[in-house]
Amino acid sequence: MSKLKNAVIGQSGGPTTVINASLAGAVAEYLKQENCGTIYGAVNGIKGILREEFMDLNSIFGDEKNLKLLMQTPSSYLGSCRYRLNLDDEEEFAKITTAFKNNDIGYFFYIGGNDSMDTVMKLSNKLEGTGIKVIGIPKTIDNDLVGTDHCPGYGSCAKYIATVVSEMAQDAGCYDIKNVLIVEIMGRNAGWLTASSALARDAKLSAPDLIYLPERAFDEERFLYDIRQKLLNQDTVIVAVSEGIKFANGAYVAEDSQDSKRDMFGHGQLGGAGKKLEYLVKKRLGIKVRSVELNIPQRCCAHNASLTDATEAFECGAAAVRAALKGETGKMISIVRADDADYKVSFDAIDINTIANNEKMIPDSFISPEGNDVTEEFIKYARPLIMGEREIIFENGIPAHIVR
Amino acid sequence: MSKLKNAVIGQSGGPTTVINASLAGAVAEYLKQENCGTIYGAVNGIKGILREEFMDLNSIFGDEKNLKLLMQTPSSYLGSCRYRLNLDDEEEFAKITTAFKNNDIGYFFYIGGNDSMDTVMKLSNKLEGTGIKVIGIPKTIDNDLVGTDHCPGYGSCAKYIATVVSEMAQDAGCYDIKNVLIVEIMGRNAGWLTASSALARDAKLSAPDLIYLPERAFDEERFLYDIRQKLLNQDTVIVAVSEGIKFANGAYVAEDSQDSKRDMFGHGQLGGAGKKLEYLVKKRLGIKVRSVELNIPQRCCAHNASLTDATEAFECGAAAVRAALKGETGKMISIVRADDADYKVSFDAIDINTIANNEKMIPDSFISPEGNDVTEEFIKYARPLIMGEREIIFENGIPAHIVR
Repeated sequence: MSKLKNAVIGQSGGPTTVINASLAGAVAEYLKQENCGTIYGAVNGIKGILREEFMDLNSIFGDEKNLKLLMQTPSSYLGSCRYRLNLDDEEEFAKITTAFKNNDIGYFFYIGGNDSMDTVMKLSNKLEGTGIKVIGIPKTIDNDLVGTDHCPGYGSCAKYIATVVSEMAQDAGCYDIKNVLIVEIMGRNAGWLTASSALARDAKLSAPDLIYLPERAFDEERFLYDIRQKLLNQDTVIVAVSEGIKFANGAYVAEDSQDSKRDMFGHGQLGGAGKKLEYLVKKRLGIKVRSVELNIPQRCCAHNASLTDATEAFECGAAAVRAALKGETGKMISIVRADDADYKVSFDAIDINTIANNEKMIPDSFISPEGNDVTEEFIKYARPLIMGEREIIFENGIPAHIVR
Repeated sequence: MSKLKNAVIGQSGGPTTVINASLAGAVAEYLKQENCGTIYGAVNGIKGILREEFMDLNSIFGDEKNLKLLMQTPSSYLGSCRYRLNLDDEEEFAKITTAFKNNDIGYFFYIGGNDSMDTVMKLSNKLEGTGIKVIGIPKTIDNDLVGTDHCPGYGSCAKYIATVVSEMAQDAGCYDIKNVLIVEIMGRNAGWLTASSALARDAKLSAPDLIYLPERAFDEERFLYDIRQKLLNQDTVIVAVSEGIKFANGAYVAEDSQDSKRDMFGHGQLGGAGKKLEYLVKKRLGIKVRSVELNIPQRCCAHNASLTDATEAFECGAAAVRAALKGETGKMISIVRADDADYKVSFDAIDINTIANNEKMIPDSFISPEGNDVTEEFIKYARPLIMGEREIIFENGIPAHIVR
C-alpha cells in the first residue's frame, strides 16, 4: 500500500462554534488511514498557503485529549482570513502551487462560508488535471449556503439564541409593568438566525412575541401597531429583529446609527437596528423599552453548542476527506435530510460551481403572512438542529480550550 | 406537635440566575417540617403583600420535578419589584399586618439585594414583639452586600462572564490583524463582575488583557497608553470595563451617551461606557475596534450557572427557614468562608441593621497597583465561586423553565 499524498486544511471567514469540529473530523479521518502522510494546517486560511505557513497536525491531534479540546474550542484554531483569491494574478497562483509542491500536497480542504467556497471553486478549476483534490467544507452561522439542507455552525448559534431569548423573557417579565425588549440578532441578508429565536417558545413563555426578518420590508408603523396589539393582552413584549432589516426603499434600518465602512467583500458593517427601534418605541409609545444586541457571543458560544450541530460539523470534515480520497474534487460537502418523520441526515459531495456566490434566503412558507413571525413549518425545520448537548471538559470552572 | 404558623416568601430587585434556587431552598426546608403549615409566595415581592396577592406553594413544589425546574429557571418565579417600603405611612404598615393576620403568617422571608435588605430591616424593626419572624436572604449579581463573604447570584454571573470572555478572545484573535475588543460588564459602583472576567485566563489566552473597575478613577490617556503597550507584543487586546467607570471628577464615562433618567432609588441608568471607549480608540489609535455590552444575558444565564453558586443559594434559603424556626428575626443569612486551603462555607444569620444600605467595594489588595488589572489574591477569592456545573433538564433543545 503506497503512502498517501499529504493534505493541507484551512479555515476561513467568520468564526463559528463548530468550525473546529469540522477540522477535527477531517484530521481524524485522514489520520485514520493506514497509509496516511502528514496533514498540515494552513495558518490564517489561504493566506497561510500563500506564505507557506503550515503546522504539522499529526503530532498534536494524534493525542485524543487534544482532539476533544479542539472539538469544544470555538472560532478557528488555525486562524482565519477574509481573503478573496485572485487567480488571474499568475504570481499568486504560482505561490500556491509552489507551496503544494514543496510539501507534497495532494489534498486541500477549506472550511468556510460563501466567500470561501468561491476560493474552493476558483482553485479547483485552476488545478484541474494536476491531480490535487480540492474539497470545501461548509461553515456559517448564517445558514445561507445553497445546496445543503443547513450549515454546520447554524444549529449551535440557534441553540444559544433560543436559550438566551428564553432566559431574557424570564428576566424582562419579572416586574408588573408594561415593557418592551428588542433583541438584535446577527444575519446580514438572511433571517435564519433571527427566526431561530422562535425556538425559545418551548420554554413556556410567548417570547419572542414578534419576529422581523430581512426577507420582508420593514415598516415602522406596522411595527408599532404590532407592539400595541400585543401590549393589550400582556405586560412584556419581546421582539426579535435581524441586524439586516431594511425599509421598502432598501435602506437599512440600522443605517443612520452606524458608519458606512465596507469590508473587503463590499458588505456593509451593520449593527444598531435594535437601538434605533428602541428609540422609536420610547418616542412613540412612551413605555419602558430596552434593546440588547446579542453580538459576538452568538457565534462563539461553544459552552452551549448543539450536539447535533457539532456532530454534523465533525462528519462534514470526515466526509470531505473520504470524498477526496475517492478522487473527487471541486466539490462541497452537503448535508442531506432524509424525508422521514425522525430527523436523519446523510452527507453528499456536490459540484462547487453550483454553490459559490449564491445565498439561501428563508422561503416564504417559513414566514407568517403578516411578516412578523415564523410558521410551524420553520419550527419543524429548525428544532432538530439545536437538539442535544455535548459533554464539556471544564478547567477551573470554564470550558477548556486549545490554542495553537 | 402543634402546627407551625404559615410562611410567606417574596423576591425583590433585579433578577439573578439563582434567586429561584433560594426560593426552592426555603420552600423545601419549610415543607420538610413535619408540622408545617402553608408557605405562600408573594407575587411581585412586597407589593404582593400589600395587595395580599399570595400563591400557595405547597402543592406546586411538593412535586419534586417542579422544584428541579424552579432551580434552573432564571429571574424571579414569583415576580419581583423595586418598591421601597415607607413604614412611616401607617396605612401601608396596616396593609401588611392585615395580610399577615388574614393568612396566619408567622414567618416572612425576603430574597433580595441592598434595597430589599432595607425592607427587611424596617419591617423586622416595626414588627418587633408581634412574634412574626423576618429573615433576609441575600441575592445580587453585584456581590456588593456587606456581612457575607460573597452573594448568591455572583458566582453564576461571574462564570458566564469568564466563559464568554474566553470564547470572545478565541473569536477576536482569529484574523492576523491588530484589533481591540472592549467588553462592557455590569456593575454600577462595585467592580466585582468586571473583575471576574480575569477568570477567563484559565482558558489559555491572555484575555482580558486590561481590566478597568469603578473603584479606580478612569483616565483616558492612561487607558490609551495601556492599549498601545499591549499592542507592541500582541495582535489582539481584550479590555474589560465596568459600566460604572468614572473619571477623577466623578463623571461617568458613559454619561454623554445615555439619558440621565434615574430609577426609583436614585441610581443613574448606565450603559454605553464600552461604546464610548470604542469611539475613543478608533479616533486616537485608528485600529480595528469593537465593543460588546454583555447586557441582560449576564444576569439570567441559568444555562451556564455555577453549581457552587446554585447550591449555596439553595442553602441560604434553607438556612433562613431554620433561623426563623429557631425564633430569630431581623437577620440576613450570610455565607462564611472557612479559613482553609480547600474552599468550604457555612451559613450564619447576622443582624440586618449592620447590613442594609451599605455597599461592599473591591478591596485594594484585589486591584493591581496600576489600576488596570486584578491581583492573584482576587483570583483566589473568586475562582471557587464559579466551580461546578449543574445537570440541566432540556426540553426541545433548550433548558426547561417553570412559570407561575
